[in-house]
Amino acid sequence: CMGWCAGNFFGRQKNTNIRVSLPAVCFVWQIAMIILFGVFIRYNEESDVRKWIEFKHSHNITSDIENDFYFRYPSFQDVHVMIFVGFGFLMTFLKRYSFSGVGFNFLIAAFGLQWALLMQGWFHSLDPNTGKIYIGVENLINADFCVAGSLIAYGALLGKVSPVQLMVVTLFGVTLFAVEEYIILDLLHCRDAGGSMVIHAFGGYYGLAISWVLYRPNLHQSKRLNGSVYHSDVFAMIGTLFLWMFWPSFNSAITAHGDGQHRAVINTYLALASSVLTAVAISSMSQKRGKLDMVHIQNATLAGGVAMGTAAEFMITPYGSLIVGFCCGIISTFGYVFVTPFLEKYFKIQDTCGIHNLHAVPGMLGGFVGAIVAAAASVEVYGREGLIETFAFEGDFATRSVLTQGGYQAAGTCVAITFGLVGGALVGFILKFPIWGDPADDNCYDDEVYWEVPEDEETIPPVLEYNNHMIHKHQDISESNFSVEQS
Amino acid sequence: CMGWCAGNFFGRQKNTNIRVSLPAVCFVWQIAMIILFGVFIRYNEESDVRKWIEFKHSHNITSDIENDFYFRYPSFQDVHVMIFVGFGFLMTFLKRYSFSGVGFNFLIAAFGLQWALLMQGWFHSLDPNTGKIYIGVENLINADFCVAGSLIAYGALLGKVSPVQLMVVTLFGVTLFAVEEYIILDLLHCRDAGGSMVIHAFGGYYGLAISWVLYRPNLHQSKRLNGSVYHSDVFAMIGTLFLWMFWPSFNSAITAHGDGQHRAVINTYLALASSVLTAVAISSMSQKRGKLDMVHIQNATLAGGVAMGTAAEFMITPYGSLIVGFCCGIISTFGYVFVTPFLEKYFKIQDTCGIHNLHAVPGMLGGFVGAIVAAAASVEVYGREGLIETFAFEGDFATRSVLTQGGYQAAGTCVAITFGLVGGALVGFILKFPIWGDPADDNCYDDEVYWEVPEDEETIPPVLEYNNHMIHKHQDISESNFSVEQS
Amino acid sequence: CMGWCAGNFFGRQKNTNIRVSLPAVCFVWQIAMIILFGVFIRYNEESDVRKWIEFKHSHNITSDIENDFYFRYPSFQDVHVMIFVGFGFLMTFLKRYSFSGVGFNFLIAAFGLQWALLMQGWFHSLDPNTGKIYIGVENLINADFCVAGSLIAYGALLGKVSPVQLMVVTLFGVTLFAVEEYIILDLLHCRDAGGSMVIHAFGGYYGLAISWVLYRPNLHQSKRLNGSVYHSDVFAMIGTLFLWMFWPSFNSAITAHGDGQHRAVINTYLALASSVLTAVAISSMSQKRGKLDMVHIQNATLAGGVAMGTAAEFMITPYGSLIVGFCCGIISTFGYVFVTPFLEKYFKIQDTCGIHNLHAVPGMLGGFVGAIVAAAASVEVYGREGLIETFAFEGDFATRSVLTQGGYQAAGTCVAITFGLVGGALVGFILKFPIWGDPADDNCYDDEVYWEVPEDEETIPPVLEYNNHMIHKHQDISESNFSVEQS
Repeated sequence: CMGWCAGNFFGRQKNTNIRVSLPAVCFVWQIAMIILFGVFIRYNEESDVRKWIEFKHSHNITSDIENDFYFRYPSFQDVHVMIFVGFGFLMTFLKRYSFSGVGFNFLIAAFGLQWALLMQGWFHSLDPNTGKIYIGVENLINADFCVAGSLIAYGALLGKVSPVQLMVVTLFGVTLFAVEEYIILDLLHCRDAGGSMVIHAFGGYYGLAISWVLYRPNLHQSKRLNGSVYHSDVFAMIGTLFLWMFWPSFNSAITAHGDGQHRAVINTYLALASSVLTAVAISSMSQKRGKLDMVHIQNATLAGGVAMGTAAEFMITPYGSLIVGFCCGIISTFGYVFVTPFLEKYFKIQDTCGIHNLHAVPGMLGGFVGAIVAAAASVEVYGREGLIETFAFEGDFATRSVLTQGGYQAAGTCVAITFGLVGGALVGFILKFPIWGDPADDNCYDDEVYWEVPEDEETIPPVLEYNNHMIHKHQDISESNFSVEQS
Repeated sequence: CMGWCAGNFFGRQKNTNIRVSLPAVCFVWQIAMIILFGVFIRYNEESDVRKWIEFKHSHNITSDIENDFYFRYPSFQDVHVMIFVGFGFLMTFLKRYSFSGVGFNFLIAAFGLQWALLMQGWFHSLDPNTGKIYIGVENLINADFCVAGSLIAYGALLGKVSPVQLMVVTLFGVTLFAVEEYIILDLLHCRDAGGSMVIHAFGGYYGLAISWVLYRPNLHQSKRLNGSVYHSDVFAMIGTLFLWMFWPSFNSAITAHGDGQHRAVINTYLALASSVLTAVAISSMSQKRGKLDMVHIQNATLAGGVAMGTAAEFMITPYGSLIVGFCCGIISTFGYVFVTPFLEKYFKIQDTCGIHNLHAVPGMLGGFVGAIVAAAASVEVYGREGLIETFAFEGDFATRSVLTQGGYQAAGTCVAITFGLVGGALVGFILKFPIWGDPADDNCYDDEVYWEVPEDEETIPPVLEYNNHMIHKHQDISESNFSVEQS
Repeated sequence: CMGWCAGNFFGRQKNTNIRVSLPAVCFVWQIAMIILFGVFIRYNEESDVRKWIEFKHSHNITSDIENDFYFRYPSFQDVHVMIFVGFGFLMTFLKRYSFSGVGFNFLIAAFGLQWALLMQGWFHSLDPNTGKIYIGVENLINADFCVAGSLIAYGALLGKVSPVQLMVVTLFGVTLFAVEEYIILDLLHCRDAGGSMVIHAFGGYYGLAISWVLYRPNLHQSKRLNGSVYHSDVFAMIGTLFLWMFWPSFNSAITAHGDGQHRAVINTYLALASSVLTAVAISSMSQKRGKLDMVHIQNATLAGGVAMGTAAEFMITPYGSLIVGFCCGIISTFGYVFVTPFLEKYFKIQDTCGIHNLHAVPGMLGGFVGAIVAAAASVEVYGREGLIETFAFEGDFATRSVLTQGGYQAAGTCVAITFGLVGGALVGFILKFPIWGDPADDNCYDDEVYWEVPEDEETIPPVLEYNNHMIHKHQDISESNFSVEQS
């Protein structure tokens, strides 16, 4: 047993049979969710029939159109698509890991959003009188936001972990997220509509830290599968485009009704547009014949949306948004060209999807952009009521100045990064134990480990059928001993 | 002629040339639609400019936001995506039948929704005074719902029928649907917002009954094409994910404004989340090394949405929704592992997509869950007004008790199943005539029958080019007589 | 230099190294956008926090739901998906040009919508007092519409141009669009909600004219790559379906609130449904065994949506919409079968995607249908207020009769076509200069020219591995001189 453990710990042999561990984790955690929901989760006053009718009476509301459902649902739909199709298909780019990319994303998001409803519910929607968490569509959106942090982390680990490990990453990721979100949004009273800090910076550094702890010295043995093929790159563009198109909804989903949502959409739309142009430019410049690299087009074109997360609801001005996207497209693409290989070589951080360049750094930049824009806010631009409304300068925070707000925004960015790094390191060590069914260094990026994969070739082309026939006719008895390598 | 008919009837030869029958059906039925629309279909008062202006005046409505368009259109968009992309791409999983899967789904849905507008219009939107059917966006949503029943049936028949047969399946499927929907929703006064009974149970058993009548004893001759390849499985995940993500919209699309739609979204979202975890768990347990099967991930993860169709708008509580999804994920996956092969072997039901496990059984369960939840409804939970509103205890049904309602809900489930089985058997016999251009038993699951399919291989890889060259150099004159099998 | 230019001009040698030109264009134009946005673009009163609060006060608006965001955003989302996923994936059908199809569509749309916000802003949203352009979500929708014209043109040029040329096509395309849109919608006071004239007829003839000027006499040398493979056809269906499903949103996106948007959705939905049936019918009839052609299903099924662009908001009646779709499905498919080859052979117009049949002709027909329906409008059908509202018979146009309106609608169609043809010819000549990095005639339809393309084969199947082994064992020293063709 000691020998087996030692053998596993040093990567000589890995048992990837998850026939007990994966179902156990799924069943036990799902039953736990049911019990916890039974104890804590109830419909809020906009989704409970009795309470909504009472609410309309007491607030003299005549039309159902005032139900928050109609303000938030269109945005919710888009966020949901980003979580499941956007992230899911973006991670199908590997030639032989598409099932795991989209499939495990599906699994951990489905679990994570339930756990997030609880975690975030305890922090934000818990009624101290009844001890219940009351949920509505805004909780669903926030749960999707919360789980995004763990999906971002998956991007760094893609191909190198088992689904059981991913469930652990998500369990802790959601928990850490709920805590840091509470600290940043409630205690520090930051604004972060699109989560540059609480989602992207946190999720990015969380994934990088885990990956650093789980560094695989012989990962090069799986090199042949660590890349794309023609059609897997096209599949990944489905993910890219749905993320890109719906990012305005993402950044406006929980913004203030009215002008807030409207402005967040415009700002995000513009930042994303300019980051496409600069990502294409740098990608072309970085190849000797100017040829574009699909990895850049799939990822760096999204950097503007990440960086605009915090400032989307501020009066950053349309050209301000273009500038943010312009810069982040450049920085992100440079990251893919230079920084990711550098991090792998000198810092031992293996980052499969390059989340450092799309989430970690642009998220951090987005947090600082938000800090600057907040500090520069003025009554002339926002109006007195507008300033109060945008930064929620109410209650305990009524006397806060915009400079102070800017300072807190910067602090919030640092909190998010810290939670990511420290939390990720801890989770990484938990995942180092040889009990999770993760693959050996020479068996990464391969769906065969966790999936029943259908026959390898799309069809056996007739010419190959014929070739097979010819070869079998010519072969000697002695050839029959050649063991055909099973892929 | 008799011999030819006999030969066809016993499957010895099949004429799959549809150059006359398919265009004839399309042209004649489309012209019929135009004529019937000309006689019957008009814009309703929310889409007719003159009537809407009058309506606003007479109801003292100042804002256009009260137009039902704004309440229903976001849901409509999502339902529409489920019908065309969700079902369409879910049926691209076969290695050589993707064109027919997505293409015939497209065709029969485009026809079916026109016929549904008429059929459902006669039942629900016909003004006895004018004799016209007045339509708005809610009719479009209901038409999409109606056609879903026939698309579900296609799932059982996928690969084994001609497009002309599918048009017939749809013609009758829509007609049967409109009748059973009227019986269940209007006469029995059941509630079935997401159609567990009227769509899924009906559609599932309809397809199974047709497939049973059209049983093919030598279908094993097409075995090599009855399966997926790597990338067709990834295409199918597009379908799965769009169905999964938009199911909350599906189940809330025609629910009562306000809290009803809001709650249906929450309930469906949760049921779907838990069915993912249990589907993954059972899939892993059912393989000796714990490997997941894409068929389960593509289909059984959706079972929660099907089963939540009836109860979505009820106060089933969030943990109640999780329990429904938990159970249905298990039942559905077991169905794929054990029941579908069993049904094929002992009941002669060949079910290509396993609709038994995703629609028929979960739909039936959803109907019974709805019956139980309805019977358990109380004034404490719903409020007096809420109870009346949720179950429409008005007019002729004002004195109905919740227990009675529960009984009718259960009866409604049985009506839906009966319509499916009896209707399907009848349609099956109509389709047995050898006039529809269906393929022979050894020619199923093959796009070549009805489509001009491009060259088989994606590219001829250079190594294969070289191989071809080498083999041709070495081959004997005698080899040239080998007839290369055309795929 | 002269010799080099002459050599290039006559196509003997082409330098496709865009390492300087593409980044230069992207950087310079993006910086220009930033400067122009800084000078001109501001948030409008619905997206500016200070102004929205003032607006609510001054108009006694109590609820944020009145913000135009809630009226327009759902439609905007769908239009955005059509532009990036719809057009983008529709152009992935070529076997080796999917990266360029979806990738260059992405690039030029991201640039084009910024330039469109300026161009259209100068025409429509410029405040003469302040000299600023005030933008909101309706401007974003109009920018997406504007860019669609250039994306349509790309369809004719797909495979034959460099990305730098496409940027030029877009720069001029957006400019021309803004001018013709102003002439047609403002000066002629036409109605064209879904852009049959201003988007489709213009964009179609623009692309055809450019293609005619850039005619390549030896394009047949790239014939082997000018076609699809099995899975690229399935990818293209993603584009087709998203275009088809969201076209109702496209045609209703900028229609009058309330009944206008509602009716436009119904009319478009119906026209699209009937064009599917007739496209399938003609496709089947045009092949001797009735087999369908994916090109028809991918494109001609959309013709109903194009043709309904102008008349969608009119009271064309539901059966009127079915008739429009019925006819356009036939015309469009005939176009693909007969007209496109004819145009290539006799008119020297090489039209890769057949935009003539989907956009140019159906757009023109849609314009004329709109003219007829407008001329036939009456007070009985529309109501007095409705007539004024639908055709905006206000201000300078208050005394216009419907017959005059119809005449202007027909004139508008001619203006759109003229702008397309003349503008396209001019742009074509600009693009003929050998400075844009376009490929040689034997190097078209190939992603390798502008992209780093991953390894050609999806995987090397085991049987091929074995074959390789066998062949290498048998080969003679003399074979080693055979130069393997690099694809």
